Amino acid sequence: MDRRVGFIGLGTMGAPMARNVSAGGFDLTVWNRSPGPAEALQRDGVAVAESPATLAAACDVVVIMVTGPEALEAVVASDRGVVHGLTADTLVINMSTVSREATLAAAERVEQAGGRFVDAPVSGTKKPAEDAALVVLAGGEATDLDRAEPVLRTMGRAVVRCGGVGQGTDTKHAVNLLLGGMMQSFVEALSFGQKRGLSRDTLLEAIGTGATNAPLYALKGKAISERNFEKQFPVDLLLKDLDLVLAAGRESGAYLPQTATVRECVSAARARGYGDEDMASLIKVLEEIDRLV
Amino acid sequence: MDRRVGFIGLGTMGAPMARNVSAGGFDLTVWNRSPGPAEALQRDGVAVAESPATLAAACDVVVIMVTGPEALEAVVASDRGVVHGLTADTLVINMSTVSREATLAAAERVEQAGGRFVDAPVSGTKKPAEDAALVVLAGGEATDLDRAEPVLRTMGRAVVRCGGVGQGTDTKHAVNLLLGGMMQSFVEALSFGQKRGLSRDTLLEAIGTGATNAPLYALKGKAISERNFEKQFPVDLLLKDLDLVLAAGRESGAYLPQTATVRECVSAARARGYGDEDMASLIKVLEEIDRLV
Amino acid sequence: MDRRVGFIGLGTMGAPMARNVSAGGFDLTVWNRSPGPAEALQRDGVAVAESPATLAAACDVVVIMVTGPEALEAVVASDRGVVHGLTADTLVINMSTVSREATLAAAERVEQAGGRFVDAPVSGTKKPAEDAALVVLAGGEATDLDRAEPVLRTMGRAVVRCGGVGQGTDTKHAVNLLLGGMMQSFVEALSFGQKRGLSRDTLLEAIGTGATNAPLYALKGKAISERNFEKQFPVDLLLKDLDLVLAAGRESGAYLPQTATVRECVSAARARGYGDEDMASLIKVLEEIDRLV
Amino acid sequence: MDRRVGFIGLGTMGAPMARNVSAGGFDLTVWNRSPGPAEALQRDGVAVAESPATLAAACDVVVIMVTGPEALEAVVASDRGVVHGLTADTLVINMSTVSREATLAAAERVEQAGGRFVDAPVSGTKKPAEDAALVVLAGGEATDLDRAEPVLRTMGRAVVRCGGVGQGTDTKHAVNLLLGGMMQSFVEALSFGQKRGLSRDTLLEAIGTGATNAPLYALKGKAISERNFEKQFPVDLLLKDLDLVLAAGRESGAYLPQTATVRECVSAARARGYGDEDMASLIKVLEEIDRLV
Repeated sequence: MDRRVGFIGLGTMGAPMARNVSAGGFDLTVWNRSPGPAEALQRDGVAVAESPATLAAACDVVVIMVTGPEALEAVVASDRGVVHGLTADTLVINMSTVSREATLAAAERVEQAGGRFVDAPVSGTKKPAEDAALVVLAGGEATDLDRAEPVLRTMGRAVVRCGGVGQGTDTKHAVNLLLGGMMQSFVEALSFGQKRGLSRDTLLEAIGTGATNAPLYALKGKAISERNFEKQFPVDLLLKDLDLVLAAGRESGAYLPQTATVRECVSAARARGYGDEDMASLIKVLEEIDRLV
Repeated sequence: MDRRVGFIGLGTMGAPMARNVSAGGFDLTVWNRSPGPAEALQRDGVAVAESPATLAAACDVVVIMVTGPEALEAVVASDRGVVHGLTADTLVINMSTVSREATLAAAERVEQAGGRFVDAPVSGTKKPAEDAALVVLAGGEATDLDRAEPVLRTMGRAVVRCGGVGQGTDTKHAVNLLLGGMMQSFVEALSFGQKRGLSRDTLLEAIGTGATNAPLYALKGKAISERNFEKQFPVDLLLKDLDLVLAAGRESGAYLPQTATVRECVSAARARGYGDEDMASLIKVLEEIDRLV
Repeated sequence: MDRRVGFIGLGTMGAPMARNVSAGGFDLTVWNRSPGPAEALQRDGVAVAESPATLAAACDVVVIMVTGPEALEAVVASDRGVVHGLTADTLVINMSTVSREATLAAAERVEQAGGRFVDAPVSGTKKPAEDAALVVLAGGEATDLDRAEPVLRTMGRAVVRCGGVGQGTDTKHAVNLLLGGMMQSFVEALSFGQKRGLSRDTLLEAIGTGATNAPLYALKGKAISERNFEKQFPVDLLLKDLDLVLAAGRESGAYLPQTATVRECVSAARARGYGDEDMASLIKVLEEIDRLV
Repeated sequence: MDRRVGFIGLGTMGAPMARNVSAGGFDLTVWNRSPGPAEALQRDGVAVAESPATLAAACDVVVIMVTGPEALEAVVASDRGVVHGLTADTLVINMSTVSREATLAAAERVEQAGGRFVDAPVSGTKKPAEDAALVVLAGGEATDLDRAEPVLRTMGRAVVRCGGVGQGTDTKHAVNLLLGGMMQSFVEALSFGQKRGLSRDTLLEAIGTGATNAPLYALKGKAISERNFEKQFPVDLLLKDLDLVLAAGRESGAYLPQTATVRECVSAARARGYGDEDMASLIKVLEEIDRLV
């Protein structure tokens, strides 16, 4: 049974996820590119490694939660990267959302060095990360997923097994394609309602009562009503994900007319200056075009 | 207290709705353009009127559930229409989905004849109509809505008060705008998943676990997996509703980029021959373009 | 040979077109709803009729150039309309751009009254109207078109025979569908160029040198470079035409994904306050979204 | 004065372009990855080099016309690449359409090796290449462009100076963005016309008479009427270019709603099996969706 878990990447998502691993009873070691976030955990008794390599050498399972493909490649394969510390059967779990290509490249490096690899991006934002309520979309061999699951369960309320390595990532992309489309439909419905003189509360009640009722709409409807655009899932991140989706769709030849349109709407939100705000800011683009504000 | 309810329009939706009014303890009288559906109810002890006018003369509340603006105008205002039978304070409830203009025109005719008017289109399809589980989106004066509510509750699991006469209709349009966008997003996500080699069941599980979880997706995911495209909410009806939405948006100057794209996708489904199938058939357009089938 | 021509509708387009009919050697009588524009022509020796009916009674050919379907119906069929003045074989030429339905309804009224009918909307704006350089898209029976042609040639540099009554209108719609798409493509190309740091003049030179070279781009490129958005073809008119196109496409079941997207862009231009400016203002929407200004 | 010109890449475009350089009076040396196309030129007296490096060593100017960024990097910077043969002030002209990044990377390698660099992608297809009627979009320093121009003029009927190195490429992207949008608008207009019962010839005449008249439409209208979809500019190439455009737009934050929609239409054409046919095949997607065929 794996007891020693390393966690690399202590950002908005990573820091609370790491705390939940520790709270779940595992012996935690962490590493972060900039030292600040690790020090905060250190004050609470968590071990801090000097490099991804030394972290890997000290752990049975290594979790990675970084911001993009360059960071992933650096922590895995650079001079002081994970591959230089792992021992036979060290399990590396990549939870960062990157392209399938980047995921598979990392997997290949890990496996060449004798380790095992699972990709496990998450659906959910800061609040679910804090509440250990993420949905984990995991891909890998069954025996590796069996090993990963106790660690993943400390962070998520559900672990969906999506297939082999890389398919967690593809599933995440499909879910975020849906998320983007649902979000833009939602703000168009609200904007339409406003143009037609409807009360927003009543419209949200109608949306929340029938087949359209989704947790997303309860959450974002409340945020929009309160004009609270503090980022849970920022516009820039949604744009990054949609670009990954469209690149994957391009590679596979998928016809995605609505997703392409949604992507431009999200791009407009970024251009209008809302990249670092929550994706609920999509409504502001419509308000500004329609001069509702 | 109103006891005598008339029901005009016994189609796919209307027939089970009328039965639920009767099951709810009201004295029911019905009328339908073609006699067949009324005879089926007559065999179960329901009274059948000779015309909308005679039906109105015999009832406290008249419910109308017909297919479009021409039918609505005919049953309300033609020679043998409702306005020629109603007495002071007869309450007319239009549950048909038409444009706001058509709703307001019917309201005006009823009010000129001394009656009261509520618009109350429904969200939900055949199955919820049978199960008295519709969501009713009602617009009218508070005292009229108070009178309408006991009747509406026999048909629906929720009655949302949307504002004045016509605002039930606008709310219905906003909800169907959302429904169309959610549906097209969904089939693009499933098609993307198929292109990427994902198991559809796993993807549906992922969609059903997080913020994207909506009753619509559970229902339509099952239908698509079973290749069951029997109409619950047919493509033709969704197209009709989106055209009403876009016409309303046009009148109000609303910018609806995604909705316009979705409308074309639904139009493509109709052009491919799926007008009379369920809106889940949207996935077939993608399959055919992408030669997945 | 027809010598006496009546002209109804002396707006931005109609006034110079009427002058060109007169300059072409025909005996001109005019009528306009508001008297001002007719008086201006009267001072130059043109006869002014008291009503469309008296105008029709005095002419062999009646040309109509009004702003929409209501105005068309009024001048044709109201109490003092054309149908009450025309004699056997009076030729009525409708040059207003309306729906095919409105065209066919006017044709029916004229034919019932014993007259002949040609539909002949024009492609071109104010400047070509002044220069007798319009392109006329004419539909009707060959013998009627033979009669219409000498009159039409005083206004246009080309008369394209499009088929029967109503097909001039459909051809106009197809051309304006193309015009809208070409215009939005153009402003996206210019906006892209600006984002990439290109000189606009150089880009316009490149566009004007190859397969993409169209008179539209020379004209609108110059206007945009000079920030001259004075209306030649205003945004509101393009929006009206695209709505006619999409309604016609809807009726025929045509799949028009790009046109639907373009229509929303034009709608955004109107919402931003550019309805009464030239369609070159489409570029301002992109500039404002992208914060280029 | 430069007399010795090397030409690398003898594909559909490159072979006739190289012949035109030779016909223009320059001493030509060629190289191609596969030997066949070079041998055809050799039989006509053209010198054939053993590698890009030896070609560069023997020439004053080196023209490169290859299919993508990998091929460009290989012929420039691999072991036997151009940089290993060039001498001080050898001028390298890249005419391949790739991303600006790939262009700038090649320029950097050439300049580090002491050479000079111009980017000069072309607008135009096989026929203009054969007829020396291409439009060349050139970027570089003025003195380098002065040297390049005599060579470029043997291949093109116009050389547009677009700015510094990389701006020829950006201009090409902007023009192809426009080309794609014009093409999709065109096929929607034709498809709309067909649905409305118009004669295609008449519609093409109307398009060719007014502001919409562009060489593209004369060419493609003829091809569509003759059902001749032999590639001049194949769907796959248009898709590649639009992906470069959208990637560049993404990098610059440009909002391109119509271009995104067009890209999906082109992707649909590829998915339907028309990747290797001319872009006029875009009309087949509409025909198939609308069941016109």
